[in-house]
Amino acid sequence: MADRVRPPVTRRALLTGGALSMGGALAGAAVATAVAAGRTEPAPALRSTVDFGAQTVPFHGAHQAGVETPAQAHAVFVALDLAAGVDRAALRRLMRLLTDDAVRLTQGTPPLADGQPELAHVPSRLTVTFGFGPRLFDAAGVADQRPLTLRQLPPFGIDKLQQRWCGGDLLLQICADDPVTVAHTQRMLVKDSRSFAAVRWVQRGFRRGRGMQDDGVTQRNILGQLDGTGNPPLGSSVFAGAVWVDDGPQWMRDGTTLVLRRIRAELESWDTADTVGKEFAVGRLLSDGAPLTGQRETDEPDLAAKNALGFPVISEFSHVARAHVAGDRQRIFRRPYNYDEPPSPDGTADSGLIFAAYQRDVGRQFLPIQRNLAEADLLNEWITPTGSAVFAIPPGCQPGGWIGQTLLG
Amino acid sequence: MADRVRPPVTRRALLTGGALSMGGALAGAAVATAVAAGRTEPAPALRSTVDFGAQTVPFHGAHQAGVETPAQAHAVFVALDLAAGVDRAALRRLMRLLTDDAVRLTQGTPPLADGQPELAHVPSRLTVTFGFGPRLFDAAGVADQRPLTLRQLPPFGIDKLQQRWCGGDLLLQICADDPVTVAHTQRMLVKDSRSFAAVRWVQRGFRRGRGMQDDGVTQRNILGQLDGTGNPPLGSSVFAGAVWVDDGPQWMRDGTTLVLRRIRAELESWDTADTVGKEFAVGRLLSDGAPLTGQRETDEPDLAAKNALGFPVISEFSHVARAHVAGDRQRIFRRPYNYDEPPSPDGTADSGLIFAAYQRDVGRQFLPIQRNLAEADLLNEWITPTGSAVFAIPPGCQPGGWIGQTLLG
Repeated sequence: MADRVRPPVTRRALLTGGALSMGGALAGAAVATAVAAGRTEPAPALRSTVDFGAQTVPFHGAHQAGVETPAQAHAVFVALDLAAGVDRAALRRLMRLLTDDAVRLTQGTPPLADGQPELAHVPSRLTVTFGFGPRLFDAAGVADQRPLTLRQLPPFGIDKLQQRWCGGDLLLQICADDPVTVAHTQRMLVKDSRSFAAVRWVQRGFRRGRGMQDDGVTQRNILGQLDGTGNPPLGSSVFAGAVWVDDGPQWMRDGTTLVLRRIRAELESWDTADTVGKEFAVGRLLSDGAPLTGQRETDEPDLAAKNALGFPVISEFSHVARAHVAGDRQRIFRRPYNYDEPPSPDGTADSGLIFAAYQRDVGRQFLPIQRNLAEADLLNEWITPTGSAVFAIPPGCQPGGWIGQTLLG
Repeated sequence: MADRVRPPVTRRALLTGGALSMGGALAGAAVATAVAAGRTEPAPALRSTVDFGAQTVPFHGAHQAGVETPAQAHAVFVALDLAAGVDRAALRRLMRLLTDDAVRLTQGTPPLADGQPELAHVPSRLTVTFGFGPRLFDAAGVADQRPLTLRQLPPFGIDKLQQRWCGGDLLLQICADDPVTVAHTQRMLVKDSRSFAAVRWVQRGFRRGRGMQDDGVTQRNILGQLDGTGNPPLGSSVFAGAVWVDDGPQWMRDGTTLVLRRIRAELESWDTADTVGKEFAVGRLLSDGAPLTGQRETDEPDLAAKNALGFPVISEFSHVARAHVAGDRQRIFRRPYNYDEPPSPDGTADSGLIFAAYQRDVGRQFLPIQRNLAEADLLNEWITPTGSAVFAIPPGCQPGGWIGQTLLG
């Protein structure tokens, strides 16, 4: 399998380079003509020196890609429900097939059965990450291998869950900087899953596009907040200690777990709140994300600091205070995307976050934080969880292997 | 108004530059640490030398932006229905308000009532283009000023129109390279329209992301076809002669008309067709878009050429042959986007094109082509129009003016 995967730049040059260069030169000439003709608004020249489309993320490795990968601009999360009778042997066939598709697509090569192979040559940092929902373990007859705390979350007071955004047996998490690549990859993987599973839900999300800001900057979510401050840094030992499984069932080592919450932003009431009120609720400045006790986004919040009147500067009910954890092993890694569905006829927005949180153990990391937040977070006034799902993210695999092999092989 | 609009780079530096640079440097350090630590899959460094986010397209000018503008990566088309009682005076207020919003947002400045002003600073070539549907002229009491052929298209045999994708009184066409910018702009404009109009439909589309391919290359649509070959070149006199209105009602001069068709791609059957069959139907090679009678995408198709057996090389029923027009004044300008809605539970795709065609005159340009295609285009087997709407695109305006002033002022 691996020997068929060539470096993406070479493949692109081989397969499409000639045609692309030619078309580009001609289009460039057209733009030049426009400028020369002295029109008052010449079309801006679009040639650029970057080729983000050719960039690839390795598929193989100890961990699955798409977690400790700098978040791509576009994501789709697809939850599948296994068909009746799909057992361990069938799951093995399915995961071999999907792994093979993902190996090829992430490296810019069309799978054998690709109906639109022309679309596969722009990987744009494509990652495909697979997750196993709680019921998959029953279907495969390996319920004893299910991580102890991998189960639907308990209900929280702030939840208004809709079943159409909850649960799922098998997760396909597809992320890339290019939206056509995400759509094409989704189509290929869903097509190859059809004999085994039905589509339960699809959640599509986006962040700032590639090259739109200085990359690596904490991004603002659709509420305008900097989102991701205080995440364990990618590649750090803190990240590894919080995210990658290092105890429990052997098959899960180097895997992780994902809690995926769909959180509606109540933009109508958020709009009517003033900046001071929003910052009090969050415990941070909206302008640059600095804690109310600090100067910079990266300053540690001082939860003990008092103001002149003796009140805490950062309210104990603020989001920052409620989400605070004692140790690095208790931290979670957030990789959120925005969603934006069409507004209702009266113009009410349907926007929010696809909140993806990765941690070694849902029970020991995500749940305590979520309980704290659900009890008293001031931000709760403006957010409503409408979807909830949990998945075990198996470890990665080496060339010739497949995702899930440590459980199903 | 214009004196409040400053160069976007300056504003960004002023408002967010400090915080962004700081955050960027820290994130960069984290990546460097990861690489130094010698992890087998270090997170790829994402710093880039481009800042596509800061790029702006002028709002003011003889023509509205967003037509002769190289197509941005993301688009949303929002159709509004005017509320009962909205007359010429109300439309005047609405268009002044929306123009002011658009002037600011396209230049990277938040409108005064922006609830998330932090999101406005990444214009990323944002354009906002307004269109007037047939009924708006009645509401404004100016039915005599409606372009003669601006009316719902006649039904075609291949249509399976759904009312939820048809019609509309006022169009907001919002295009930008960044999807967060599109979402934020949509939210602002819909919010400011609420007292005047209801949302009828929203169609969101995408193309390859900015910087993903050599820009200016003809893009492949979701069927894998090169789409846009043979368009009048931006900035050319052919473009101007085909697109910008130069006769008829005085108020429309330098405007254009838009036909927006939602066209579902029948990917399931398209997948089962072989390459030769697809290329025969289209009249072009899938690989590089060259006509079956030529070598390169830009070669003119030779509709008279015969093969050794005496049959036409390009079938008279092929898409290329059916779409052929005699003169440059008859051409249309296509600026298509892909759409991709969640598949059905059984995995059937719901993907296709938001086919946006601009021309001086619907009746003299779009309709003859569409009749030819509907009669006999071989490609019809794989495409199904499900939505249809027409809009007059008024001319642009100068600083201090507003879109629609020549009709409603």
